[in-house]
Amino acid sequence: MEPELHPHAGDPVFDLHVGGKMETVSTVALTGRDELSLAYTPGVARVCEAIAADPSMTQHYTWVPNTVAVVTDGTAVLGLGDIGPAAAMPVMEGKAVLFKQFGGVDAVPICLATTDVEEIIETVQRLAPSFGGINLEDISAPRCFEIEERLKASLDIPVFHDDQHGTAVVALAALTNALRLTGRTADGTRVVISGAGAAGVAVAKILLGAGVRDLAVIDRQGVVNSERSDLTPVKAALAAATADNFGRRGTLADAMAGADVYIGVSGGTVPEEIVATMAPDAIIFGLANPTPEVHPDVAHKYARVVATGRSDFPNQINNVLAFPGIFRGAFDVHATAITENMKLAAATALADLVGDDLSEDLIIPSPFDPRVPGAVSSAVAAAARADGVARR
Amino acid sequence: MEPELHPHAGDPVFDLHVGGKMETVSTVALTGRDELSLAYTPGVARVCEAIAADPSMTQHYTWVPNTVAVVTDGTAVLGLGDIGPAAAMPVMEGKAVLFKQFGGVDAVPICLATTDVEEIIETVQRLAPSFGGINLEDISAPRCFEIEERLKASLDIPVFHDDQHGTAVVALAALTNALRLTGRTADGTRVVISGAGAAGVAVAKILLGAGVRDLAVIDRQGVVNSERSDLTPVKAALAAATADNFGRRGTLADAMAGADVYIGVSGGTVPEEIVATMAPDAIIFGLANPTPEVHPDVAHKYARVVATGRSDFPNQINNVLAFPGIFRGAFDVHATAITENMKLAAATALADLVGDDLSEDLIIPSPFDPRVPGAVSSAVAAAARADGVARR
Repeated sequence: MEPELHPHAGDPVFDLHVGGKMETVSTVALTGRDELSLAYTPGVARVCEAIAADPSMTQHYTWVPNTVAVVTDGTAVLGLGDIGPAAAMPVMEGKAVLFKQFGGVDAVPICLATTDVEEIIETVQRLAPSFGGINLEDISAPRCFEIEERLKASLDIPVFHDDQHGTAVVALAALTNALRLTGRTADGTRVVISGAGAAGVAVAKILLGAGVRDLAVIDRQGVVNSERSDLTPVKAALAAATADNFGRRGTLADAMAGADVYIGVSGGTVPEEIVATMAPDAIIFGLANPTPEVHPDVAHKYARVVATGRSDFPNQINNVLAFPGIFRGAFDVHATAITENMKLAAATALADLVGDDLSEDLIIPSPFDPRVPGAVSSAVAAAARADGVARR
Repeated sequence: MEPELHPHAGDPVFDLHVGGKMETVSTVALTGRDELSLAYTPGVARVCEAIAADPSMTQHYTWVPNTVAVVTDGTAVLGLGDIGPAAAMPVMEGKAVLFKQFGGVDAVPICLATTDVEEIIETVQRLAPSFGGINLEDISAPRCFEIEERLKASLDIPVFHDDQHGTAVVALAALTNALRLTGRTADGTRVVISGAGAAGVAVAKILLGAGVRDLAVIDRQGVVNSERSDLTPVKAALAAATADNFGRRGTLADAMAGADVYIGVSGGTVPEEIVATMAPDAIIFGLANPTPEVHPDVAHKYARVVATGRSDFPNQINNVLAFPGIFRGAFDVHATAITENMKLAAATALADLVGDDLSEDLIIPSPFDPRVPGAVSSAVAAAARADGVARR
C-alpha cells in the first residue's frame, strides 16, 4: 500500500493513530515447509488432539492463558458517553497496548454491536474459550454490574470491569497512604464518595473491604440512603452498607460538612464553600477527567492531600497502575477469578511501593515506575493462591 | 514466570507450541507521559469523537481495517472432526500466523462455545465492529453454507469460509494449468468431484464459474442428481447446476468411467480399478490430508497430472496460496465483500504465476514463492474495483 494522507494529517494525536496502535505477530518462525508442518498441518493436529483429550493442555500450548479480551459496548467511553462500538475502538486498542506494555498480557479489543445486557453476557460466554480473561470496559452503569456479576458466576476465568475495580484499587492505594500521612485509621475516617456509577460503587465496596465504616455515597439526589424510594437494587444494597450505618442523609453539602475524605468520580464541580466545610487535614481526590470535581488549586486551600486523575498534577490516580499487574498476577497462577482479596492485595502492594518517599505530593507511584507491575502481580498471585483460585 | 517443563517436552511439535504461536504487539511507543497522553487519555478522546462523527474514520485510525477474525466452532477441524472450540485453537492460531506472514493481515483467533447456527451468526454480527473481515474456518457442512450466506448478506465487510473458497481457488488455479498442459478447455472437460461438503460444493461452484459444464459431484450415496430424494437444499441446487445437465448419475465408478478430471475432497480411497477407467491424459487431485484419495504412486499409473494436499509431493494444493492474498487485496481497497470475480481473479493470478515453468510437476506455485501474495492481492483488488465493492 502507498502511504496515504489522512484526513487529520499534521495533528499529533491523529498522526499517531494512523493504522491503529497494535498488531498481531507470530512468535514462531515459518521460514519453510518443515516449520510449516510443525506449526500448521500436519503437526498441529497432534496438539489439537492433546487438548481434546485434556482441556488443561490449552494452558500450555495456546496463547489463550496469556490473552485477555477487552470488551465494550461503547456506552460509557471515557467522559464521552454512549458513542457506540466503532468509536470506542481507539480506547480499547489503547487499553490493549497498556496491557501488553505494563503487564506482558496479550489483549484483543472487542467492540460489540449490541447494548442489550443478555446479548452482551451470552456473547462473552460464547467467546470465552478464546481468552484467558475478560476485561470489561466503558460499559454504562447500572448495566455493568449485572453483566460483570453474571459473567463471573458463569465463567471459570477472571472477569474484571476495570472502570469499577481498576479505579477502586488505585484509589484505595492512594487513600491508604493519605491516611498514613494524616495519622488516620480506616475505621475512624469519614468518607464521602461523589458518584454512584461504576467507579463510585466499586470504590465504596473496596473501602468497606479495607475497613472504612463511615461512608456516604452521593448521587444526583444526594446521599444514597434507605429512606429514599428511588434506589436501584445496586444503590439499595449500597445504602445499607454505607450511609445507613451512621445515619448519613441529605445533600452533598450535608455529607461534606466535617468529612475527612472526598472522592469524586462523578464529574461536575464541588462549590468551594462546601469544600471549605471539610475537617482539618482533609483528603480530596477529584478523579473526573479532564476537569477534577475540585480543582487542585482550590483543594489545596482546604486539604492536606490532593489527588486527581490527571498526569499534569501530583498524585495521579491512574488505572494503568492496577489492571496490567492484576491480570499478570492472575494469569501467572492460572487463576479462575479475581477475588476481593486479590484486589486488596494489589492496592496494598501499590501503597507500599511508595515507602519512605511518602509525602503530600507522593501518595501513589508513577505509572512509569518500573517496580509497579511486578509488585502488583506478585501480590495478586499470592492472594489468588491464598484464596484457592490458583490453578498452579 | 519461570520457564516450565511442559507435558510433552522434547516433542518438536509441542516444543514449538509452548505459549502458543502468536502475540499482540503495540505499534506505537509508550515511553512516557507525553506519548501516553497521545495514545491514551486525554488525546485518544479526539479520535473517538472523530469516528463517532464519521464512522469511515475507523478506516484510518484503528487497526480494524487490517484485522480479520478467524472464527470457528470447532466442529470440523482438519480431518479430526468435531473436537470443540478449545481444541481448535492451535489451528486458528496457525491460520492467524499465516495471515500475517503471507498477507500482512492481523488476525485474531475466535473459537466459539456454541455450535448453533443462529447463535454463531448473531455472535459474529455482534463482533463485526471490531474487525475488517471474517474468515470462517473448520465449521461443518451443511451449517457452514447458511452461516456464510447470512453473514455475507448482513455484514458490509468481507466474509469468507476458507475451507470452501480457499480450497476452491487453489484447486481452480491448479486445474487451469493442468487443462493447459493437457490441451483441454474448461467447457470440453468432464470433471468428477468426490465430496459434497464445504470444499466439494465450493470447488463445484468455482469450476462452474470458470466455464466447466460437465461436472458430477459425488457423496456417500453416489452422484448428486435430482433423481435422488435424499438431497439437502444445498445439494439439490448443486444437482441442478451439475450432474443434471449431462444426465450423470449412479455410483463413483459410473461417474469416473471416461472422466477427464478427478478432484477428491472427501477422504477415503478410490479403488485402483476405478482410477484405471478414466480418460487418457487424466488429471487427478487427491486433496485429503494426510492420505490422498488416490495415492500419487497409483495416480501416476493412469494420469498425466497429479496433485495432492501434501507438501512432500509435487503440486501441493494449499489454501495458504489464496487466503492471505485474497484478504490483503480486499483490505487494500476496503472491499465490502469478496465476490465470485475476486475469487476467480485470485485463481487466475495463481495459475499465471507458473508461466513458462509449467510442467506435469509444476502446475501451481510453491506456498513460499515470494511473488504469490502480491500477485493474488493485486488481482483481487482490481476485481473488487471492477465489481464495485471497493471503498477506495
